Amino acid sequence: MKNYIQIDEWNIIENNFNPHHHKISESIFSLGNGRFGQRANFEEAYSGESLLGNYVAGIYYPDKTRVGWWKNGYPEYFAKVLNATNWIGVHVNINGEELDLANAEITEFSRVLHMKEGFLERSFIAKLKNGVQVKVKAQRFLSIADDEIGAIRYAITCLNQDANLIIHTPLDGDIANQDANYDEKFWVEIAKEYADDELYLTLETKKTAFQVCTASKVQFAKEGVLQHPQLAPIQREKYISSEVQFSLNKEEELVVYKYVAVVSSMNHPILELTSSAKNAIQRSCEKGFEKLLIEQEMAWAAKWKENDIVIEGDAAAQQGIRFNIFQLNQTYTGEDERLNIGPKGFTGEKYGGSTYWDTEAYCLPFYLATADEKVAKNLLIYRYKHLEKAIENAQKLGFKNGAALYPMVTMNGEECHNEWEITFEEIHRNGAIAFAIYNYIRYTDDTQYLADYGLEVLLGITRFWAQRVNWSEDKKQYVMLGVTGPNEYENNINNNFYTSYLATWCLEYTSEAIDFVKQNYSERFEQITAKTNFNAAEELAKWAHIRENMYFPKDEKLGIYLQQDGYLDKEQILVSQLAAEDRPLNQKWSWDRILRSCFIKQADVLQGLYLFEDRFDIDTLRRNFDFYEPRTVHESSLSPCVHAIIAAKLGDEKRAYDFYLRTSRLDLDDYNNDTEDGCHTTSMAGTWMAVVEGFGGMRVRDGLLNFHPFIPEKWKAFSFKIKFRGSLLNVKVHRQGIHIQNLSSRKVNVKVFDVVYEIEGQTQKEILLEKAA
Amino acid sequence: MKNYIQIDEWNIIENNFNPHHHKISESIFSLGNGRFGQRANFEEAYSGESLLGNYVAGIYYPDKTRVGWWKNGYPEYFAKVLNATNWIGVHVNINGEELDLANAEITEFSRVLHMKEGFLERSFIAKLKNGVQVKVKAQRFLSIADDEIGAIRYAITCLNQDANLIIHTPLDGDIANQDANYDEKFWVEIAKEYADDELYLTLETKKTAFQVCTASKVQFAKEGVLQHPQLAPIQREKYISSEVQFSLNKEEELVVYKYVAVVSSMNHPILELTSSAKNAIQRSCEKGFEKLLIEQEMAWAAKWKENDIVIEGDAAAQQGIRFNIFQLNQTYTGEDERLNIGPKGFTGEKYGGSTYWDTEAYCLPFYLATADEKVAKNLLIYRYKHLEKAIENAQKLGFKNGAALYPMVTMNGEECHNEWEITFEEIHRNGAIAFAIYNYIRYTDDTQYLADYGLEVLLGITRFWAQRVNWSEDKKQYVMLGVTGPNEYENNINNNFYTSYLATWCLEYTSEAIDFVKQNYSERFEQITAKTNFNAAEELAKWAHIRENMYFPKDEKLGIYLQQDGYLDKEQILVSQLAAEDRPLNQKWSWDRILRSCFIKQADVLQGLYLFEDRFDIDTLRRNFDFYEPRTVHESSLSPCVHAIIAAKLGDEKRAYDFYLRTSRLDLDDYNNDTEDGCHTTSMAGTWMAVVEGFGGMRVRDGLLNFHPFIPEKWKAFSFKIKFRGSLLNVKVHRQGIHIQNLSSRKVNVKVFDVVYEIEGQTQKEILLEKAA
Repeated sequence: MKNYIQIDEWNIIENNFNPHHHKISESIFSLGNGRFGQRANFEEAYSGESLLGNYVAGIYYPDKTRVGWWKNGYPEYFAKVLNATNWIGVHVNINGEELDLANAEITEFSRVLHMKEGFLERSFIAKLKNGVQVKVKAQRFLSIADDEIGAIRYAITCLNQDANLIIHTPLDGDIANQDANYDEKFWVEIAKEYADDELYLTLETKKTAFQVCTASKVQFAKEGVLQHPQLAPIQREKYISSEVQFSLNKEEELVVYKYVAVVSSMNHPILELTSSAKNAIQRSCEKGFEKLLIEQEMAWAAKWKENDIVIEGDAAAQQGIRFNIFQLNQTYTGEDERLNIGPKGFTGEKYGGSTYWDTEAYCLPFYLATADEKVAKNLLIYRYKHLEKAIENAQKLGFKNGAALYPMVTMNGEECHNEWEITFEEIHRNGAIAFAIYNYIRYTDDTQYLADYGLEVLLGITRFWAQRVNWSEDKKQYVMLGVTGPNEYENNINNNFYTSYLATWCLEYTSEAIDFVKQNYSERFEQITAKTNFNAAEELAKWAHIRENMYFPKDEKLGIYLQQDGYLDKEQILVSQLAAEDRPLNQKWSWDRILRSCFIKQADVLQGLYLFEDRFDIDTLRRNFDFYEPRTVHESSLSPCVHAIIAAKLGDEKRAYDFYLRTSRLDLDDYNNDTEDGCHTTSMAGTWMAVVEGFGGMRVRDGLLNFHPFIPEKWKAFSFKIKFRGSLLNVKVHRQGIHIQNLSSRKVNVKVFDVVYEIEGQTQKEILLEKAA
Repeated sequence: MKNYIQIDEWNIIENNFNPHHHKISESIFSLGNGRFGQRANFEEAYSGESLLGNYVAGIYYPDKTRVGWWKNGYPEYFAKVLNATNWIGVHVNINGEELDLANAEITEFSRVLHMKEGFLERSFIAKLKNGVQVKVKAQRFLSIADDEIGAIRYAITCLNQDANLIIHTPLDGDIANQDANYDEKFWVEIAKEYADDELYLTLETKKTAFQVCTASKVQFAKEGVLQHPQLAPIQREKYISSEVQFSLNKEEELVVYKYVAVVSSMNHPILELTSSAKNAIQRSCEKGFEKLLIEQEMAWAAKWKENDIVIEGDAAAQQGIRFNIFQLNQTYTGEDERLNIGPKGFTGEKYGGSTYWDTEAYCLPFYLATADEKVAKNLLIYRYKHLEKAIENAQKLGFKNGAALYPMVTMNGEECHNEWEITFEEIHRNGAIAFAIYNYIRYTDDTQYLADYGLEVLLGITRFWAQRVNWSEDKKQYVMLGVTGPNEYENNINNNFYTSYLATWCLEYTSEAIDFVKQNYSERFEQITAKTNFNAAEELAKWAHIRENMYFPKDEKLGIYLQQDGYLDKEQILVSQLAAEDRPLNQKWSWDRILRSCFIKQADVLQGLYLFEDRFDIDTLRRNFDFYEPRTVHESSLSPCVHAIIAAKLGDEKRAYDFYLRTSRLDLDDYNNDTEDGCHTTSMAGTWMAVVEGFGGMRVRDGLLNFHPFIPEKWKAFSFKIKFRGSLLNVKVHRQGIHIQNLSSRKVNVKVFDVVYEIEGQTQKEILLEKAA
């Protein structure tokens, strides 16, 4: 755990430059606008350790799989998001020496991520080896108001002498992915152009043939006066830059403005890429940096209005949740159903930037409650469009009759992951995708979705489950063998409670969905039946038989569900008994030792009890929580939030708060010692859930928003915004009660502590605790 | 299954050239002499598909591991045997066209492996595109009489016209391993020299710095008259050759003799490598090809005298067993305890040429009974020398106090394999190494070995088991979680019967060994105790407690041991119910499907019942065999031999014979469709076991050789040679009885059908069946 980030309610602040923290900060201070994003690399040259990162949403490359021992069914390729043209460069040579913070004496340094306004600011004073003392203030942002634009303002002053400056402002596309499997570079140059002092660089990805044009224009102002210097172009393979010279008097300020456009063939015909980039550059230059920044601040203000969470009395908690919301908003806007949410967003390469079950299990609730309904719907349609590939994937493994197995990791619907114990066995992901459909409809009441898209997906998934279980003559029950649950510290286990329960639920929900669509959309139902060769009588009967005869492992004495068959054969040690030097297990222990231990990477049985909480009584929840919580090491970022929600439900304030802090400040405090690879973007949605579902106790039941709020002792109050079926609420929980303000014009009924309240549009209601309880 | 090899009792014969069979034949016709070996590549150029292979025993390279997802505890490197300088080249250019069977019209072709004499012969008539019809007869061998020498006789006649020949006879060291993980070449050139028409090429391996000098000298004879042509040297990086021209009259025969020396720094000081090679070349040239070949035939005759098996009345079976014995003799002579037996011998690269448990479980019995005792002892000492590394390996995984885990795959004692389910979990290999010590002492009565070497190894292994099990509070027994048994179609299972039984046996045997050494070699025992910090009271008590409370899975109703917990939860299908197109499963099914199926790759429970047969009654053996045999697909070459032995014991003639044929002709008939990668050398020892232990019913009990012979209907008789404690027996089983000839001067007692017979030196005994039964 590191503690160098300053606590502040609205900003992320680093006040000293420590090269050992630089890669962590590059992750934390990342920028993105849903369309493209980047790590917080420096504009000027930096020869120290750094992880360069620029990413364009949806642009991927199928990198040939690297595997020691091939297994039938493995994918040939791992589709990964590509490190793309680096456009932030403002390289400054002062009196013949390159400005480089790795080689200068830094006397002042600050880096601030202005989350409210959506820009990154950095200022420093540094003394070069040649004695020049230089002051720099750099600001930059990726516009969310005009999402193909980025802008930099880079102000330089030499404090102790006059100086000659040579400034390069490159677009550098000669970039490799750090995680390339075979050290291959994935881009080829298509075109570059230098015209009217504008730079254009168009690259194409190998194999996938995506094209991205990056363009830039630089402007210079001395003491506020625009300059028109002579620019000299510099070109080489996949690289274009311009060079300019300035004489700068002591204490005179030179400002470099760099306007950038990033446009891709995802959104423009290839023949219009350059002209689209040109338009974007022109729009930027006409408005200028300051006006663009005002637009940015306004756009962010609108976002915050809809999904800010305020925590009073606890600045660390406040900063944590805002950072999480900020990063989620930077990563995914939901306007493009071809896109999804990579585990690291635009903050790193790890996990290939591909789609995991994180999206359905963690991100969907956040977007459901904080964004337009179409955002959540787009996330579902993303999977609908991959249904055919999921069926092919299941076929490859030997499943038949339209069974669908969605991939563990994907970019285009094809499986990318290649560890048998995950690829073939961590199949609960399939259930998460079905649950997301249920969850979306529960929240929005958009039953039309079921007919239009949902049922086909449910049918494929359910057919998979029906084939994946088998009848055990020994048990006279159905079993599910050879799976890996959410707890990846177990592999190839039998009868994982979570997976089996989720599968059984899928059989049930799909059966209901079939009834519903049959009754309400009979024509569409016929269509689906024909398309999928659905044999209602036979398949429904089979599913019912499985549901009625499914085996779930449990221990009657302890009154708990067992994570899997034989879990109690393990040596039962508690996390509290582990020595500090053993943690995190995944860095300190051999895989052998981890697998055989009872330690749980992330919520597993508890994940099931969380998803289906209404089917278990509170004592069952408590017994399972009391058993599994002390065995859980939370070495997945997706774990503490679920524990926080359950702890809150059980009234366990201390643990609820501790888990919340751990999830919300995971990256800011580098809890798992891996933030340098990028932020844990998808788990940030879990942080939001910890506040809203955990402390707010929010649930949707029978079409009603329910609240069972719970406020940690340290907090004076907390409030969150909720969009629900056309209404927008601000829900504030304070020590005396709950205050709900209906910011929309639509009347809404809510249930607080089991009492229903009607809140007219544009009104508010104060419900005091004594009254409610 | 392919059937192109001609049936012959002493020779392996291919009568037509089929390019599609070429890589298979390159494996089958391989040559070796224990010190170096090679695939049956052609001497002349060949542009068709081919797997080039030359290997020098013990010369390896640690190739950086290729892994998709790293796990703590994985090895950094995979030590693999190296493809070395190709020395067989006799490249013939005729009237400007290169002789190349891929580009010529072949009218006659034969390839014969003379197993009795130990040489390879090939003759063909081919018509080149330029019309020249050429006849070639090539013979070559790797001397087992002088194991640094190889020799080639290559006779060329142009049948239809006079011709100009240009002949190149290269040593080509610019060689890559086909299975290199990163396409790296592993050799660097140290020196090359051309002197007195002799070629010298010295290469060094990267990282390991082994040096190998390959030298050659060519001689030419026209119609039997030695020629003295002018040779021109050709040199380039890692390559040296000589060129010579000949005018050849129609039907005139030119013979090229190529004498080769292969010497390595394993056996000579680096500074003396070239001179050692020079000596070897001189020895060869002085003797000449014909005399060297006579020496070879004599040396092979001596080998056959000691370990031939004769089967009368079944040429296919006869050919099969002789091929297996021949390949084993080519691979390992047992004279160097630094060497071991790679799964493919010198016939291919696959599996890296490293040491597996195959050695202890399959090869040791063969060498015990057919070679000098020091050979088996050397195989044990090989592991003794790796003990320290095995302890380090266990430490890496978290084991303590001198626990030793021998690697799954190794060259120098370090683990090379990197699949967690094998590397960390297929730990039964550790038991095989302990069992080999027991087996060696049982056979030889060399109890001194226990004191000198064995006990230390046993102690390390047993300490591993004692830590690897854990107490299950749930079962109130010890369990062994997370293992992979010999059946690799199951991974990460709990309580694998074979592994648990073997482990418990180790605890018992080591306890006995401790008692024995303590009583008989007390000083040595003190030494070991001090060296290993052995706490007799505590550790022995712990082992006893485990032995008394170990859990073994079984099914009382079926009366069988269970391969693992939950095996009966699987859908129970028999191999006979599988469609032909599903076989072999490992090529046709996804790994997911294989893992979840009940199908067994190779003997697992049955491997245990085989090893410890005296501890189980015949009904138990029969019930388990009847249950597991129909579920076993034998997709490991190590499987059918065990089934053959058990079937013979149970009197199941048909299955015993079928399994025998399958194991003995595995490569000749390319049963598993993978002989092109190399022969299944280690499993060939299993074939020997199938005859001797299966049909011969040979066991060693209480210091006596026991025989329970059993003869397949088709066979008139079969006989095998057995070395036992200084005596040499020829055991012949015929339809009326068993005939044992004591070829040594030492008296020996044997037990046939439970009656003890004394056989004086140089006498024989006929025991008739009716008398015996």
